[in-house]
Amino acid sequence: MFRETHARSVMKAVSWRVMGTLTTSALVFVVTHKFALSLAVGAVEFISKIGLFWLHERAWDRMRYGKEEIRPVVVWFTGLSGSGKSTISRWVADQLRTRGYRVEQLDGDTIRHIFPNTGFTRPERDAHIKRVGYLASKLEQNGVFVVASFVSPYEDSRQFVRGLCGRFVEVHVDTPLAVCEQRDVKGLYAKARRGEIKNFTGIDDPYEPPSNPELVLHTTEESVEQAGGRVLDVVMRRIGKVN
Amino acid sequence: MFRETHARSVMKAVSWRVMGTLTTSALVFVVTHKFALSLAVGAVEFISKIGLFWLHERAWDRMRYGKEEIRPVVVWFTGLSGSGKSTISRWVADQLRTRGYRVEQLDGDTIRHIFPNTGFTRPERDAHIKRVGYLASKLEQNGVFVVASFVSPYEDSRQFVRGLCGRFVEVHVDTPLAVCEQRDVKGLYAKARRGEIKNFTGIDDPYEPPSNPELVLHTTEESVEQAGGRVLDVVMRRIGKVN
Repeated sequence: MFRETHARSVMKAVSWRVMGTLTTSALVFVVTHKFALSLAVGAVEFISKIGLFWLHERAWDRMRYGKEEIRPVVVWFTGLSGSGKSTISRWVADQLRTRGYRVEQLDGDTIRHIFPNTGFTRPERDAHIKRVGYLASKLEQNGVFVVASFVSPYEDSRQFVRGLCGRFVEVHVDTPLAVCEQRDVKGLYAKARRGEIKNFTGIDDPYEPPSNPELVLHTTEESVEQAGGRVLDVVMRRIGKVN
Repeated sequence: MFRETHARSVMKAVSWRVMGTLTTSALVFVVTHKFALSLAVGAVEFISKIGLFWLHERAWDRMRYGKEEIRPVVVWFTGLSGSGKSTISRWVADQLRTRGYRVEQLDGDTIRHIFPNTGFTRPERDAHIKRVGYLASKLEQNGVFVVASFVSPYEDSRQFVRGLCGRFVEVHVDTPLAVCEQRDVKGLYAKARRGEIKNFTGIDDPYEPPSNPELVLHTTEESVEQAGGRVLDVVMRRIGKVN
């Protein structure tokens, strides 16, 4: 929610007045060739119009006309643990912020600390993704871009989230299991192989690849900037802007 | 997210130009007493300045200066089932919308359909309120007023939500149990008395009244407009506006 302050209207009035009065004076001089007259008209105009401009600004601030609302997008990254979702989604979120948009980043790892009592069985994962999807859709409805990165292994629950959202861009970070397991940044694959973690996606729980994602990223072949750039292109096109 | 369209800038340029040029012409006439001259200056000015004004508008649209962000408030209604939370919160949300604010209404009854697998035991209620509180705080952080109405019987979880939010207004709708049970709009108290619903707040599950709420409403003594009006006063004061 932004409202224009009185200070802004006054500053605009002054900045316009300087430009406007210089033009008027020049004009009067060109037409009449009388320097003193052009100065006199300029002086009176400067004083009288600054107040008028301020009133004009205040009146327009009340009007909605032409204040275009940008309908945001929910960008949903799905893929195995260690596929590179978080890294690319951070890059995309930063780029959107740079362009002046409101962005909320939702990440599987951080959100589980706040959304309590969420386990990793199929119904628990399902409920978790549906809740996160609801959160994303509420943010979207209120003008906020959402960049979400969740393993979100089940097609059903991703489709549910797509249904809740208005503009949904599903991005499959399609890094092969072998590569993710080799990277194993958090040591989770090792734990899952030892049986210390149950229901780990890719090991003893399935990953259902998206049937019709807006984008598929191949992190073994493209850099973060290349992959993120492709996502950004799709997002910007979706909101009717050229990237 | 609002951006000003080019059409808005053009319309503002025209509306200003009509006012501005009439003033300039009048001014030239007053100073010179030459009607033709004043018309000539007016005509040239009209054409030259309309473009200048448009450029000026576009430049200012890029500037953040003086675009004041209104930091919103989370209004949290707590109270027994049938206490009148939903009715008053709807009234407050409508009033805030009328004032031009973005408002998201979160209601216990509707949200349980979307946030799946939420039961009514203490840990389940607790987790539910924490999730809703997280949702509310994310909306608040993104400039959206939240009007939430939940039985939210436990002091602990309400305190948790207060901690997540920036500007939190806790409203205790303090309708006596006997009155709520007599109203029994949804027939829930009857079911709870017959043992068909378990863990029903006020019957076989405790309601912990807020220890330090911003407001206490007495629906047996005040109308929806009176109670809602008091809430609105507190909210408007909180954002630095007079209601």
